[in-house]
Amino acid sequence: MGLVVQKYGGSSVADAEGIKRVAKRIVDAKKNGNQVVVVVSAMGDTTDELIDLAGQVSPIPAGREFDMLLTAGERISMALLAMAIKNLGHEAQSFTGSQAGVITDSVHNKARIIDVTPGRIRTALDEGNIAIVAGFQGVSQDKKDITTLGRGGSDTTAVALAAALDAEVCEIYTDVDGVFTADPRVVKKARKIDWISFEDMLELAASGSKVLLHRCVEYARRYNIPIHVRSSFSGLRGTWVSNEPQGDQKVEHAIISGVAHDVSEAKITVVGVPDKPGEAAAIFRTIANAEINIDMVVQNVSAASTGLTDISFTLPKAEGRKAIDALERNRGTIGFESLRYDDQIAKISLVGAGMKTNPGVTAGFFEALSDAGVNIELISTSEIRISVVTRADDVIEAVRAVHTAFGLDSDSDEAVVYGGTGR
Amino acid sequence: MGLVVQKYGGSSVADAEGIKRVAKRIVDAKKNGNQVVVVVSAMGDTTDELIDLAGQVSPIPAGREFDMLLTAGERISMALLAMAIKNLGHEAQSFTGSQAGVITDSVHNKARIIDVTPGRIRTALDEGNIAIVAGFQGVSQDKKDITTLGRGGSDTTAVALAAALDAEVCEIYTDVDGVFTADPRVVKKARKIDWISFEDMLELAASGSKVLLHRCVEYARRYNIPIHVRSSFSGLRGTWVSNEPQGDQKVEHAIISGVAHDVSEAKITVVGVPDKPGEAAAIFRTIANAEINIDMVVQNVSAASTGLTDISFTLPKAEGRKAIDALERNRGTIGFESLRYDDQIAKISLVGAGMKTNPGVTAGFFEALSDAGVNIELISTSEIRISVVTRADDVIEAVRAVHTAFGLDSDSDEAVVYGGTGR
Repeated sequence: MGLVVQKYGGSSVADAEGIKRVAKRIVDAKKNGNQVVVVVSAMGDTTDELIDLAGQVSPIPAGREFDMLLTAGERISMALLAMAIKNLGHEAQSFTGSQAGVITDSVHNKARIIDVTPGRIRTALDEGNIAIVAGFQGVSQDKKDITTLGRGGSDTTAVALAAALDAEVCEIYTDVDGVFTADPRVVKKARKIDWISFEDMLELAASGSKVLLHRCVEYARRYNIPIHVRSSFSGLRGTWVSNEPQGDQKVEHAIISGVAHDVSEAKITVVGVPDKPGEAAAIFRTIANAEINIDMVVQNVSAASTGLTDISFTLPKAEGRKAIDALERNRGTIGFESLRYDDQIAKISLVGAGMKTNPGVTAGFFEALSDAGVNIELISTSEIRISVVTRADDVIEAVRAVHTAFGLDSDSDEAVVYGGTGR
Repeated sequence: MGLVVQKYGGSSVADAEGIKRVAKRIVDAKKNGNQVVVVVSAMGDTTDELIDLAGQVSPIPAGREFDMLLTAGERISMALLAMAIKNLGHEAQSFTGSQAGVITDSVHNKARIIDVTPGRIRTALDEGNIAIVAGFQGVSQDKKDITTLGRGGSDTTAVALAAALDAEVCEIYTDVDGVFTADPRVVKKARKIDWISFEDMLELAASGSKVLLHRCVEYARRYNIPIHVRSSFSGLRGTWVSNEPQGDQKVEHAIISGVAHDVSEAKITVVGVPDKPGEAAAIFRTIANAEINIDMVVQNVSAASTGLTDISFTLPKAEGRKAIDALERNRGTIGFESLRYDDQIAKISLVGAGMKTNPGVTAGFFEALSDAGVNIELISTSEIRISVVTRADDVIEAVRAVHTAFGLDSDSDEAVVYGGTGR
């Protein structure tokens, strides 16, 4: 008998009908002879509504209390789901993150899982129950306070439980049919990927693909837990993410896995930096001290006549104001002429392990963009990814051109189920 | 420095404005030099909405999961309240029932508190925090499952914490100004009671007064915790409930505390019961086995010619169907001719320790009803209470007549704040 962990996002359990539909799917997995552990997010917009309420009583909600507030959402959905399953004649028990043994550090609102001790889950399974676990939440090791795992936290809960319980697979149910070669809202001919490696999925997630978050894939890779991303609506086979394809998992696209894009970043250019050792370090130490994560970095060739150079980097738009402030405060120490801020940029990335041994990929990528009349502002490459920054206005055209150029377009205009994604 | 436990019902924290208003009141108590523990109910209609959701996914929600669901409501209100207090510049920490050490038995949906171990609350107070505790919930001693305390459970949480922390007073904030000599919606001239004994309050609660529930008063009496029932809107002094009046607590109504009425009961008459030993026992054993609590019981004088008698009793309307079914199933064993069910009755009760030594009270009560043209169907008395059952249609006239006859009417038509009550 296999052990399966299933995770359902907020859009899959948005109302009573959704909960009953999901309950049927869970019972089917149980009837197929599996032990079933289910991780569930808060219903639909519950979390946003709670965040809104918090904003009404306090402009800067405190971390500990904010986590206590938000975790109410999963308590509601998991209890209702357990009831719906019992109503179908099967035994189910719901568990908070704390009851499920999800132990985290004490960083409220974005805690990291440091251990999973699923003793109560194991007991519930051994007694023939389906175990329903609140996603997105845990309990801090030192203070025993309720914590939340931040965006995409329920996926991480599911993978972490799958690892701790040595599950055969972690099924991530969402409102799309799987991982696509590009965002199907942008590229109508995007193809669903049948199988993708952890490495390629990590690069896609880092490049703007929203279906799985980076942290969740990283966790799955570390513990070698196959992930199956699929739709809770269609019931079709989705995308398998694992080390190696298994059985009849098709590997059609040996060279390129997909095209990702990201319009959530901004670009800061530090103009007129003295071209001497230690300058770049001073800039990025300043940014790091402000706890801002940066993405791409490019230093222009120095103009010999002035001895000055420009350094550009990209970062989340939400961090833009903080970064500019930090740099201005340290202007004297760093030494630069001016700062330029640009939030009208897009990043387009081509991802695929095959490009390591295919030298023509980079050239083909740039040619496709050039043919589409898209200007490139920054370039960054890894062994299995090429990313460029373009004007935000060019993003749709750029993604479509690259998708077609690398033969990723589907033959048919197949219907694609797509909405937002749960957390 | 004194320790005060305050409890706020759902109507007091129905929205963000309510939460901010309550936060100010709590901070005022802290500024007055008290250590403050606050017990809070779920916001407004949250609990009813959750119950409705449960009904949509399952016709018979399971106890354990139902409790998990309902307790989400208090997590939301307590976290928001803690945030609102912090926003006023004071330290606050919220605690679930489990974190607050509210240990219960395992009877889901109506658990009883068996111990309170408020170690974390004590620590929070010693560190200068205001402690916010989720009302209505606890954790079961044996299984460590989340439990709820049933209707009025938040009041019981507050009194139990006050006892465990040896508080000076347990303040129950609600949307009325205190306990009145009669329901102010029925009797416009009802007077707010300044002080009332535990015993009289217990009788009023048992007779239909909704301001404080019987279980909460019983707990307070056992541990001798004074209760102060007051409005979270007006801030006026309310009603003190305690063993003895203290300081300037006025004791105006030495004989009679008030008139209560209750239209939530029904009457069952078992017709044609053989008048021999063991018959009544057989009837009430049947009812007890069905876990139904009954209230008043009356056996008519046997008609000598037939050797048969009738036995009538009252019980909550909600239990009527179950009681009839249980009696019908045991008809052969018990032996009776027929059953009569009547849910158009009202119970009117006069409560006051003074009546023990005032023999005229009973007569005065019946005269007042008679003068108002109200017919009496059943009578039941204790040392400090007389109750009668009348037609439901007569209840308003009966309550007003008795209130006036015993001199309880207020001199002025004072404005009275009244709405529903939280749980």
